[in-house]
Amino acid sequence: MKRIAVLTTGGDAPGMNPAIRSVVRYGISKNLKVLGIMRGWWGLVNEELREFDHHSVSGIISQGGTILKTGRCPEFAKKEYQDRAFNTIKKNAIDGLVVIGGNGSFTAAHHFGETYNVACVGIPASIDNDINGIDLTIGSDTAINTALAAVDNIRDTATSMERIFVIEVMGRECGFIALSVALAGGCEDVLIPELKPDWERMCHDIVQGNIRGKLSWIVVVAEGAGSAIDIANKITEFTSLETRAVVLGHVQRGGRPTAFSRDLALRLGEAAVDSLLKGRRNIAVGLCCGKISEVDFATAIKKKEIKAEYWYNLIKTLT
Amino acid sequence: MKRIAVLTTGGDAPGMNPAIRSVVRYGISKNLKVLGIMRGWWGLVNEELREFDHHSVSGIISQGGTILKTGRCPEFAKKEYQDRAFNTIKKNAIDGLVVIGGNGSFTAAHHFGETYNVACVGIPASIDNDINGIDLTIGSDTAINTALAAVDNIRDTATSMERIFVIEVMGRECGFIALSVALAGGCEDVLIPELKPDWERMCHDIVQGNIRGKLSWIVVVAEGAGSAIDIANKITEFTSLETRAVVLGHVQRGGRPTAFSRDLALRLGEAAVDSLLKGRRNIAVGLCCGKISEVDFATAIKKKEIKAEYWYNLIKTLT
Amino acid sequence: MKRIAVLTTGGDAPGMNPAIRSVVRYGISKNLKVLGIMRGWWGLVNEELREFDHHSVSGIISQGGTILKTGRCPEFAKKEYQDRAFNTIKKNAIDGLVVIGGNGSFTAAHHFGETYNVACVGIPASIDNDINGIDLTIGSDTAINTALAAVDNIRDTATSMERIFVIEVMGRECGFIALSVALAGGCEDVLIPELKPDWERMCHDIVQGNIRGKLSWIVVVAEGAGSAIDIANKITEFTSLETRAVVLGHVQRGGRPTAFSRDLALRLGEAAVDSLLKGRRNIAVGLCCGKISEVDFATAIKKKEIKAEYWYNLIKTLT
Amino acid sequence: MKRIAVLTTGGDAPGMNPAIRSVVRYGISKNLKVLGIMRGWWGLVNEELREFDHHSVSGIISQGGTILKTGRCPEFAKKEYQDRAFNTIKKNAIDGLVVIGGNGSFTAAHHFGETYNVACVGIPASIDNDINGIDLTIGSDTAINTALAAVDNIRDTATSMERIFVIEVMGRECGFIALSVALAGGCEDVLIPELKPDWERMCHDIVQGNIRGKLSWIVVVAEGAGSAIDIANKITEFTSLETRAVVLGHVQRGGRPTAFSRDLALRLGEAAVDSLLKGRRNIAVGLCCGKISEVDFATAIKKKEIKAEYWYNLIKTLT
Repeated sequence: MKRIAVLTTGGDAPGMNPAIRSVVRYGISKNLKVLGIMRGWWGLVNEELREFDHHSVSGIISQGGTILKTGRCPEFAKKEYQDRAFNTIKKNAIDGLVVIGGNGSFTAAHHFGETYNVACVGIPASIDNDINGIDLTIGSDTAINTALAAVDNIRDTATSMERIFVIEVMGRECGFIALSVALAGGCEDVLIPELKPDWERMCHDIVQGNIRGKLSWIVVVAEGAGSAIDIANKITEFTSLETRAVVLGHVQRGGRPTAFSRDLALRLGEAAVDSLLKGRRNIAVGLCCGKISEVDFATAIKKKEIKAEYWYNLIKTLT
Repeated sequence: MKRIAVLTTGGDAPGMNPAIRSVVRYGISKNLKVLGIMRGWWGLVNEELREFDHHSVSGIISQGGTILKTGRCPEFAKKEYQDRAFNTIKKNAIDGLVVIGGNGSFTAAHHFGETYNVACVGIPASIDNDINGIDLTIGSDTAINTALAAVDNIRDTATSMERIFVIEVMGRECGFIALSVALAGGCEDVLIPELKPDWERMCHDIVQGNIRGKLSWIVVVAEGAGSAIDIANKITEFTSLETRAVVLGHVQRGGRPTAFSRDLALRLGEAAVDSLLKGRRNIAVGLCCGKISEVDFATAIKKKEIKAEYWYNLIKTLT
Repeated sequence: MKRIAVLTTGGDAPGMNPAIRSVVRYGISKNLKVLGIMRGWWGLVNEELREFDHHSVSGIISQGGTILKTGRCPEFAKKEYQDRAFNTIKKNAIDGLVVIGGNGSFTAAHHFGETYNVACVGIPASIDNDINGIDLTIGSDTAINTALAAVDNIRDTATSMERIFVIEVMGRECGFIALSVALAGGCEDVLIPELKPDWERMCHDIVQGNIRGKLSWIVVVAEGAGSAIDIANKITEFTSLETRAVVLGHVQRGGRPTAFSRDLALRLGEAAVDSLLKGRRNIAVGLCCGKISEVDFATAIKKKEIKAEYWYNLIKTLT
Repeated sequence: MKRIAVLTTGGDAPGMNPAIRSVVRYGISKNLKVLGIMRGWWGLVNEELREFDHHSVSGIISQGGTILKTGRCPEFAKKEYQDRAFNTIKKNAIDGLVVIGGNGSFTAAHHFGETYNVACVGIPASIDNDINGIDLTIGSDTAINTALAAVDNIRDTATSMERIFVIEVMGRECGFIALSVALAGGCEDVLIPELKPDWERMCHDIVQGNIRGKLSWIVVVAEGAGSAIDIANKITEFTSLETRAVVLGHVQRGGRPTAFSRDLALRLGEAAVDSLLKGRRNIAVGLCCGKISEVDFATAIKKKEIKAEYWYNLIKTLT
């Protein structure tokens, strides 16, 4: 193993930059040449890459986003594009590829690595925390804190104006952000894809609260469980109470990574390079039960289990 | 002047709490009784009030929202409700009323004060900074910083994913928040109610930028100038480029007030009580050209002038 | 088990308030009476307590510090004071005691619980993360992020003015905060109690960096490993380079708890009450390998192991 | 006027980067060549400079510190160094010089500009807000908010542990930061260079507070008025109450500039270039009574007046 390459793909997540920094600098410390590939799979397809040195990653540790750029690349599902990517691999004598991204990125890396016999190791970075078999992805802690700050702000208005709010957070098909934020924000209810919503109960709770004088109410909804606007309308329809919707949206993606997101990214960068050096492939490195471990891509891309009922019950009990 | 009362009305703004603190504690230091009226005009109509002491306002200096609650009260336009409010004033021997709020609040206070001969002094608190004749309302500095943090976050994603974003900020019919945020955020364009939008030029700029390799682009839009979603659609239609909309919404209303919002609120609380003690009425206190001054309600509720073209040109020149 | 009590003791940590909220509200949901004891052991000694209801803990979830107050109580080492505390327990028919605090708090609870046969369950809350057998204490994530923000700020000046800084962080005899912050902050060196300092190497590195043009340098020092001021002087003496010291101090203790600190606190509050209900005693609840578990007080109060060399080597490799 | 140059000197301040961005981009928009001089006066002395283009200042708008680096340069008081600086001016055909800095920087620019007949225009950037004749320097709003966040954090501990704290903030010989922070933080007392301290009264207040149950107390001290450690010792000596000192130090210098600091910097960058184009020299541009204006260097470098008693009395009245 003499030359490795690193790319970021899928949605950006805060902590991708420290992960890149770690792969580059730790790789160099192990006498590897490290290539940075731009724009995810696109850069591999179009041979958009360059060798990175120690200074290429200076000053990025505290920055959100990714200096390698990222994006979706649906064309990479086609053999023609994969062939071009493999040509780049061969032409540049790339012995190992570090793929920083989420679920979709690992699915693509899994297929590409197996089909073309390329050593791929994944670093899970996604705000959605939807990688199976690992505790937390890079970026999810930051996104949760960003969303929580927004919920805290909205609580001020909800309390002062005695209003009902429905706040939509990210997470795709995973309710992790929604549960973490709803619990930490002291929110009155939460809707997630993992649990069937009980509209009647939710609206009944709101009306009962209203009767006993609890006039402010915050419902957090995971994007995979519905639209805040629709849900606000539904609540108004059932309860006749004015309800506001807020869609936090892309605000959750960016920003200075938290200490946790950075430390995790820096540790996983080292672990990914070590795994490649040990001849490992088709795996992601990640935090499993608090320890840095390896998870097969095949496992990682399965539907993630979360203890939805445990979190949900605690949220409802404590409000 | 022996007894004064204080209320917050209209949308909540960060800094209302320190303003309340200042009115209460400074009033007490001047040997006044200070009554806190709950829920804005509603509390005056329904006699929902109580005497506040030094401890009633402990620990609120750093909190967003308002412990007095607030809200819109369209019924207060009716004479019947005003009569009830005046009864509360008489019954509680209220000699002066401090109204903390925005444009609509001052309009109501102006009418009520003149009609019933009640000494009303306003403290301008509104994130929209739409009070004429004064530099800055309490809360606008906080809201601008909150919106700016969101824009900084979105910049990470816009740059990493090379996307166009349209970000809608608050401000009602006033473009002040939008201009301040767009300039401070290094945004590529801004749409405000004060300036007629030139769609063709905006889309032409985006396409030209795209051609020369500038793939990320942020347009800030003031809520009074259109909907982010509509504008994003328009841009996509004209340019064929994928464009995302983010509506920051109520996140901008809450949160820890900034130092500026707090210091201003605390200073204006003192000024409002002093004005009442000097027998002044039908005025708002505020920062005018950097100094605490008085502005007639009649002036304050006029359409605020902002140097829209100056700001707009600077924004376009610096991007 | 019908009546439980909760107290906070030792240094305050962000997240104590959500822990109290959880113990109180979850306890009530289990049909327990929950007493809040003021000022730590002092309140038990002096019978300063009152029954808490659902509203007693409203609005505290996002606040640093502890509404129960806290403090050191060296007198509690004496039998006389313990007897008085036990009288309070009997008089108020307290069946179980939840002790929220750190290492010293658990040592006292361990002794008191065993001596007087009182069911004590601990919730680890301490910014220092010095409880053995558990992953993370409540508050340490918040303190680390606060310290990291300070390091990021100082980095701006260190880079702009090309200076050497020594930054002292908290952590008592534990280097966890220092290591987490130094890694996440991209700091050039770190001194912790767990590793013998190599002054010569540190100063040699600084001088070598200076020669090759790296003029800014940040050393993080854990309070247990020395004083920033002494170390800055030592560096100046050895290298003749101007060096500044910053002692972050109590700033690290307070502030809005992070999502992680809050979620952990809320989950452990539930776990502590559940443990009491199951008849458990002389244990702390905590996150062990990512799962909520129980740890004997006897284990918890031992010297915590951290992987000091692993962290240290990664920090040095990546700068 | 065809070629201008820009430098930052003195202590760094958050907002210097947006000021540089504005000078460079606005200058270019006016068909000027803009040179960036590194390391303040040193770069002029040693001809360390290069032409900046539009991209040289990309991505810096949200960053603290200064990409031009800065520092003190006592040697610049000597004619020999000034001669070398002037040679750089002539050799590079620099027609105008924008000096971004504080009091000391303007003093040097004043002398240099007059002696060598060089058109110098100043942009006031200093966290201390010690420039006479202008409302606010670039960076002071950011520093005040940073210090206020620290005070808010310490308030949590002060309240929870019922302790007295003395917090030292920056500001050199100017009490502006201290007054702004003490008022906004609801602090119990403040010591500034502009007002003679009344130790007896301060300690009497603390003791009286203690007697009536007010056990937490925060005193803010401006660095120019004494050392937090000395004052804490003095309080302990007089009152026998345990008192902690915190020196905020360089944490206050860095960090993301606030919206106010950025907008001011961007506007003053334009104003400085416009002043040069109009043939103005030996002046600073700044916010005067809320409007962008010019102030002679001779006025700007005089001792700044602040309404110390007004602020002090308000602080004492409201606590």
